[in-house]
Amino acid sequence: MLRSLAHRSWTSLQVPFKAGQRAAASTLSQAEKKVVFSGIQPTGIPHLGNYLGAFKQWVDLQEQASQGTTLLYSVVDLHAITIRQDPHQLRLWKKEMLASLLAVGLDPERSIIFYQSAVPAHSELMWILSCNASVGYLSRMTQWKSKLSLPENVSPLDPTTKTPLKLGLFSYPVLQAADILVHRATHVPVGSDQAQHLEFARECATSFNHHFGQVLVSPETIISPAKRVMSLTKPEQKMSKSDDNPKSRILITDTEEDISKKIKSALTDSTEGVSYDPVARPGVSNLLDILFHMTGSTFGSREDLVADCQNLSMRAFKSRVAEAIETEIGPVRERFHETLQRENGKYLSSVAELGAKKASTSATGTMNLVRDVVGL
Amino acid sequence: MLRSLAHRSWTSLQVPFKAGQRAAASTLSQAEKKVVFSGIQPTGIPHLGNYLGAFKQWVDLQEQASQGTTLLYSVVDLHAITIRQDPHQLRLWKKEMLASLLAVGLDPERSIIFYQSAVPAHSELMWILSCNASVGYLSRMTQWKSKLSLPENVSPLDPTTKTPLKLGLFSYPVLQAADILVHRATHVPVGSDQAQHLEFARECATSFNHHFGQVLVSPETIISPAKRVMSLTKPEQKMSKSDDNPKSRILITDTEEDISKKIKSALTDSTEGVSYDPVARPGVSNLLDILFHMTGSTFGSREDLVADCQNLSMRAFKSRVAEAIETEIGPVRERFHETLQRENGKYLSSVAELGAKKASTSATGTMNLVRDVVGL
Repeated sequence: MLRSLAHRSWTSLQVPFKAGQRAAASTLSQAEKKVVFSGIQPTGIPHLGNYLGAFKQWVDLQEQASQGTTLLYSVVDLHAITIRQDPHQLRLWKKEMLASLLAVGLDPERSIIFYQSAVPAHSELMWILSCNASVGYLSRMTQWKSKLSLPENVSPLDPTTKTPLKLGLFSYPVLQAADILVHRATHVPVGSDQAQHLEFARECATSFNHHFGQVLVSPETIISPAKRVMSLTKPEQKMSKSDDNPKSRILITDTEEDISKKIKSALTDSTEGVSYDPVARPGVSNLLDILFHMTGSTFGSREDLVADCQNLSMRAFKSRVAEAIETEIGPVRERFHETLQRENGKYLSSVAELGAKKASTSATGTMNLVRDVVGL
Repeated sequence: MLRSLAHRSWTSLQVPFKAGQRAAASTLSQAEKKVVFSGIQPTGIPHLGNYLGAFKQWVDLQEQASQGTTLLYSVVDLHAITIRQDPHQLRLWKKEMLASLLAVGLDPERSIIFYQSAVPAHSELMWILSCNASVGYLSRMTQWKSKLSLPENVSPLDPTTKTPLKLGLFSYPVLQAADILVHRATHVPVGSDQAQHLEFARECATSFNHHFGQVLVSPETIISPAKRVMSLTKPEQKMSKSDDNPKSRILITDTEEDISKKIKSALTDSTEGVSYDPVARPGVSNLLDILFHMTGSTFGSREDLVADCQNLSMRAFKSRVAEAIETEIGPVRERFHETLQRENGKYLSSVAELGAKKASTSATGTMNLVRDVVGL
């Protein structure tokens, strides 16, 4: 349970940014300087939920944003350590996450892809913001409670709590605010579970500006319809890395055989044929959702797709889903391994270095302003 | 009251380090690599209490430490902002504090003298330590309570508290621990009011090493007999910048006339002659203490000094005290103004730059180790 929130983008970037599709897209395509920021924790090989819920949109955004838009995607390792990590594991996971971002199609020449810990300005701004962040406000936020599996009404000093609350986990939203504000992000798309933290970041910016003048940018929150991918074995729950059963999820590194086996063993039901009903038929509906997202361009609507599948046997339907996943994930898997091994790992290091350099430049401008107005 | 603790060294370095005088001195003179760290908040022109309670010992230490000992003295501006500061004022106070350190005799070629905010590693290590620092432990520490004038048994979430507690003030001991640990300080002399924070820093080091191996150095706490300088107008209280009455303190920038006037108006009593009795005659005893510290080399013991003064009229005694202060402080005052103005302020900037560079180098080694063992 401790890891239930650990491995996924803390801002689930779910904005398709197709022209005219939503207000956010048109806002972003305007000429003024836009900055998009999002982050993901390095806690293992990403699964299909990460891929559809975040990565695909990050790539769409990269492809469709105007040339003047800055895109920053961070592997937020400083957030990962708010929960105890094995150092060797963490080091591996960082590399794997960076390789994943490249494998799904992010281009280090276009987007700034970086390890959070490589840019000290994140911690620096965190401290400065913390001097104005209320302990009472933070204690009412929910994430530290859910990460420690505590009820929502618990106090940070509750003596009955078995796992003593650490300052890092408690202060997490302030570092998250710093992540966003240090790059003057204008657009931070979030899943609904992160709306509270974005609101906090906006408050940090507003309060700072109130005291010191218009220095920080209050980011626009874009809540977008989630592409939720459910567990293959318990389809009423989200697909998650923390599930003990590896068959519950498809990783972006799964082989064609892995995918086929996992989809074959996916929990469905004994109703004849294929139909979409997330309540009565959660397993089948989840597979339909996955298939739809994987073949989005072929079928204009989910209804068309369902119509096309309705007469298939479950076996044939599952084969089709597995094939669609393999078609999409196969090249990602190959690029992942290729990227990890490229130049004996030196390529990945050079990408990290380039990202750190660009992200530092992005942060330095803000920090110079901040230090100046604070009097440091 | 908010500033009652603000302006003074948070580690009151009060170790004379004269050969054989105390164990600490002999420990420090041994051949192994020693690192001394201390910091002072930039919150105005230092007074005689700062001068005698910290600066003189910092300089003694510089003069007497072996060549292999690293000395770091930081103007801890990131601590200053845990309480709201006027940015223009803070910027000025930083310069004045740096100029003061040079004026009292610290040598930027021998000691590393730097602004804390110029070395991002302090904030970086603070975040990493905070991931292992217990909120419960921090809430039991007393400094945030005294800075907010709250009773010792108050909780950080007490709804009756008028000034809402900010995260920065609450987390202050963790940044202080980072200040010390990032430079692998072996010796941190403290006043008794700071012993709790040093103990916390030691715990941070021990706990980190327990999880990640022997990386951080647990500093030795040196509690030394305080050279307390009391208020000239309320001699039962410590000399303090936060006292509304400027006649209560002598600043290191006071002119000969200022000093003379302030000592003349110092509260004493109507008992005939001069004698040492801090309880019955706090004002006279405080002046005797000041005189003794100012002329320490002339009189071997306080008793000798008292004997030498006992038949003086109060007027003559005060003249003697004022003269002794002027003899000591006069050259400091001149060097202070000279240093501030030297090369149109460029000299001070170059000292800050040199200090930042050296302190960054000192911190980088630790941070590389820390990042490595944590898996970042």
